[in-house]
Amino acid sequence: MPQARLIALDWGTSSLRAYLLGEGAAVVEARQHPWGILHLPEGGFAAALHGVAGDWLAAQPGLPVIASGMVGSAQGWREAAYAPCPADGRSLADQLLAFEPGPGLRMHVVPGVRLAGERPDVMRGEETQIIGLLSREPALAARCALVMPGTHCKWVQVRDAAITTFNTYMTGELFALLAQHSILGRPAREAGTAVACEAAFERGVAAVRAHAAGATPLLFSARTLVLGGQLAAADSLEYLSGLLVGEEIRCALQSGPHADELPRLLVGDAALCRRYQRALALFGLPSQLAADGAAPAGLWQIAMSAGLLRAA
Amino acid sequence: MPQARLIALDWGTSSLRAYLLGEGAAVVEARQHPWGILHLPEGGFAAALHGVAGDWLAAQPGLPVIASGMVGSAQGWREAAYAPCPADGRSLADQLLAFEPGPGLRMHVVPGVRLAGERPDVMRGEETQIIGLLSREPALAARCALVMPGTHCKWVQVRDAAITTFNTYMTGELFALLAQHSILGRPAREAGTAVACEAAFERGVAAVRAHAAGATPLLFSARTLVLGGQLAAADSLEYLSGLLVGEEIRCALQSGPHADELPRLLVGDAALCRRYQRALALFGLPSQLAADGAAPAGLWQIAMSAGLLRAA
Repeated sequence: MPQARLIALDWGTSSLRAYLLGEGAAVVEARQHPWGILHLPEGGFAAALHGVAGDWLAAQPGLPVIASGMVGSAQGWREAAYAPCPADGRSLADQLLAFEPGPGLRMHVVPGVRLAGERPDVMRGEETQIIGLLSREPALAARCALVMPGTHCKWVQVRDAAITTFNTYMTGELFALLAQHSILGRPAREAGTAVACEAAFERGVAAVRAHAAGATPLLFSARTLVLGGQLAAADSLEYLSGLLVGEEIRCALQSGPHADELPRLLVGDAALCRRYQRALALFGLPSQLAADGAAPAGLWQIAMSAGLLRAA
Repeated sequence: MPQARLIALDWGTSSLRAYLLGEGAAVVEARQHPWGILHLPEGGFAAALHGVAGDWLAAQPGLPVIASGMVGSAQGWREAAYAPCPADGRSLADQLLAFEPGPGLRMHVVPGVRLAGERPDVMRGEETQIIGLLSREPALAARCALVMPGTHCKWVQVRDAAITTFNTYMTGELFALLAQHSILGRPAREAGTAVACEAAFERGVAAVRAHAAGATPLLFSARTLVLGGQLAAADSLEYLSGLLVGEEIRCALQSGPHADELPRLLVGDAALCRRYQRALALFGLPSQLAADGAAPAGLWQIAMSAGLLRAA
């Protein structure tokens, strides 16, 4: 096994991903546990860290540990204050939160990023993915737009290797709430599991695009189209998903300072990114899918900027 | 006690309101039970009818009974097919569903109204309120716009005493879901019960009005403004309510064929209608609050058109 240089933790709400990194951010070993900050094992954060990386630390005592994501939130292990925009790898490294959870063990937590103003916004974890992405594709650093789908999707503007502005859309959370709890989810819940239907998704996106006011006046049609036999019950959630993703794109185009930014990269879960890519194409917008592995690359980059890797 | 002519039932999802009506739709007695169609007593619909109006029927056997609302839905007592738009008192009366739930008892159920097309819509119960409202304020019948706040708010266009078109907004359901289940509701849930804060509500409405793309890009600010100390946790749901009501008004103005219709009447729960009135005023739109009691007046009107009152 090659000499390890860093333990990098991508520690979110619902999962903990751990990477043992060697020279040049090469992934020596990767592990994943369902120990997100809301689903910790008995013994809490320390037990989770021991469980995921105890053997790595035993093999190389003193190996630096760096973490990003909700582990640094008020509900996390220790709260790491947000860094202001514009934020780059340097400023994030300067504001790393360091603490000692146990003898001989030093944890470093990457701060989230905060956009100030009348419509403030925050991210935690995405900033590290962005730094990683830019470190691997330096051509993007001068200027690009990132779309990071998920529970809370972020649209991010990058200039000169820094996060300059961003906007959060609650699309993923809204979809889950409507599907599970609202009257719109009822037909699909009764119809049972559905095969993902691209046509119904695209129909939802197209409906929003054709409707100047956006998705709000169309939401109830996810029910009434089913009532009237114009949409299969099993397809209704795909249509609803199309409405919500279409609404997000409509708004981002109309309101974001980064609306017509290029290149536009999709970052995150591959299947979800492909959905967004299809929806963007229906709005006439080209986009590319970013390669996986941005988080460990970002953690490496920030650790290097912070001087955590000097000893090697 | 004056001679009764009709038993009128406003029978929705969560409550059953019963009216014993005398000549000219005068309310002789009114009762309310929590026996909405999803909360029926043991014995179901028949038991609820007996419980709410058994003594009225015993005192005057053969008294006609008419009902509107979700009692006529697929989940109701009997399904009453939707009447198409344009729908007026005459067409609703022509399509009354009649059945005999027991010996000597004849029930009549008012159909809902359906708008056909690419963006179909449906209502059940509101059509009866509208007929009642127009019967009491004939000056409105020629032309008006109605806004009917609730779980599923309806914006309705009236022409020549008929419902010509309408659009449903899921504002009430969305607010309840976000407040109870989403991350946006968390600060207020933790802060405990809040006093209704007009300023926070109006701040939400004004934010949507100032933002061309509408409320979608602003939703997350109900959280981030609290995180940043720019909004009290206890006020955050009022702000969110303002965002959602503001979004509804923005969309209705932009997308409805009845956007600039006047006079504009608010129909429904008085406190909720006053909220909408304040929000409309922030958009520069005058509106009036309709008087209570539209449902029994509408049931009377439809029963009369259907000839149910001939025997008196």
